[in-house]
Amino acid sequence: MNNDPSNTASRQGLLYGLGLGPGDPELMTLKAHRLLQQVEVIAYPSAEGTPSLVRAIAAPYLPKGVIEIDMAMPMVEARFPAQQVYDAAADQISQHLNEGRSVAVLCEGDPLFYGSFMYLYQRLEGQAPVQIVPGVTSLSACAAAAGLPLVARKDILTVLPGPLSDEALTRRLTQGKSLDQSQDQAFAIMKVGRHFARLKALLGRLGLADQAWYIERATTSEQRVERLADVDQANAPYFSMILLHKRGRADAL
Amino acid sequence: MNNDPSNTASRQGLLYGLGLGPGDPELMTLKAHRLLQQVEVIAYPSAEGTPSLVRAIAAPYLPKGVIEIDMAMPMVEARFPAQQVYDAAADQISQHLNEGRSVAVLCEGDPLFYGSFMYLYQRLEGQAPVQIVPGVTSLSACAAAAGLPLVARKDILTVLPGPLSDEALTRRLTQGKSLDQSQDQAFAIMKVGRHFARLKALLGRLGLADQAWYIERATTSEQRVERLADVDQANAPYFSMILLHKRGRADAL
Repeated sequence: MNNDPSNTASRQGLLYGLGLGPGDPELMTLKAHRLLQQVEVIAYPSAEGTPSLVRAIAAPYLPKGVIEIDMAMPMVEARFPAQQVYDAAADQISQHLNEGRSVAVLCEGDPLFYGSFMYLYQRLEGQAPVQIVPGVTSLSACAAAAGLPLVARKDILTVLPGPLSDEALTRRLTQGKSLDQSQDQAFAIMKVGRHFARLKALLGRLGLADQAWYIERATTSEQRVERLADVDQANAPYFSMILLHKRGRADAL
Repeated sequence: MNNDPSNTASRQGLLYGLGLGPGDPELMTLKAHRLLQQVEVIAYPSAEGTPSLVRAIAAPYLPKGVIEIDMAMPMVEARFPAQQVYDAAADQISQHLNEGRSVAVLCEGDPLFYGSFMYLYQRLEGQAPVQIVPGVTSLSACAAAAGLPLVARKDILTVLPGPLSDEALTRRLTQGKSLDQSQDQAFAIMKVGRHFARLKALLGRLGLADQAWYIERATTSEQRVERLADVDQANAPYFSMILLHKRGRADAL
């Protein structure tokens, strides 16, 4: 094995999309753990001016001397996702790959489930061999934290981004009911963040508040699990979710 | 720490729902890996007469002398899920917990995502402390295997069990379109198995075959990824899935 990057120009490096799980570093896979220690370059998103959350998950296992590409995202609504940041990062990554270095893009949760990896994947696919390592999603983590069976048997699960309009959310949350009166179903509302108060009010109007659980920063030391009805606040962190199941928790099966 | 089970009757054992991931043993989490080596009893489902698939995932890491509860499920459609098997297993597990032994229920994928753990959880919740360890789902594994971005931005994801009727599936697959003309969405059809031919025909009639990928035994040595249109067979294994995305793969972002 040749670990001297200056001497590997003839090989193309491998690009990894590494799912690191929902927050607790122990919830990364054995495979992500192994690869983290082997790669020569890591790239990760951060909110401009604050430390990267996903880098913190990886921190206990990072090899010494690893090259880091911090994709600092400007926190301006209209510019998000910041195409220029991804363009610049893709250029840097591309150069490392061409010089034979392996690059791991660190992903919270799973790389293909609302992850920023996709923006790099789109830009770099075809340029180098890509390996995607799936990870535990925030969805699984939130269900586990709440002890809330998500779906069983013939249940249908719908995952809805919180930034969707009231109208779009209402159609989904209510149409399901009229479509499949006899069908059990669950909903996950992701990316709650600054939409919290609007979402809570909407679920209240739709008569769904009693079935709803609010989960924040699942699997971290700051984890919070509450009935939505008991949460009184205007905003929520980005890493929060609302889970709805028409059977609730107590009689969930 | 006291590891002699004969001397722990005064303590209640802990019940773990351990998500072991989609098939590749390296896709279990560090946490599942650690706990597997600590528990005194494991319980797992199997199809009667065949070796348990989830036990095979755990096999490289099982401690010597671990007590095993094999929940052999009769492969008779009408009796599935076999309530009596779960009742008997819950009794055995309950006794181990009362005698102070920790018990891990081994789960393919994630314990709360179409897992059989829920049937035991329902029976044992409240009797002992329960810890659920989320795992990588087959959904994440299949998307990674196909290199198919699942959802990004404001995309909606709907997870549909394949055994649902043509009518129920059609409503979901087509209503979404009329509801959210401008909304990108993805569908995952789980538990394809003996419904394969019917599902393929249905997607063909709905004009969705070109967007559909078929993934079998993701992350194992027998992994298979094909365009649904190219797969000609009557049945599929239980561990298979159809992923649909209206943007397909090439132009998926």
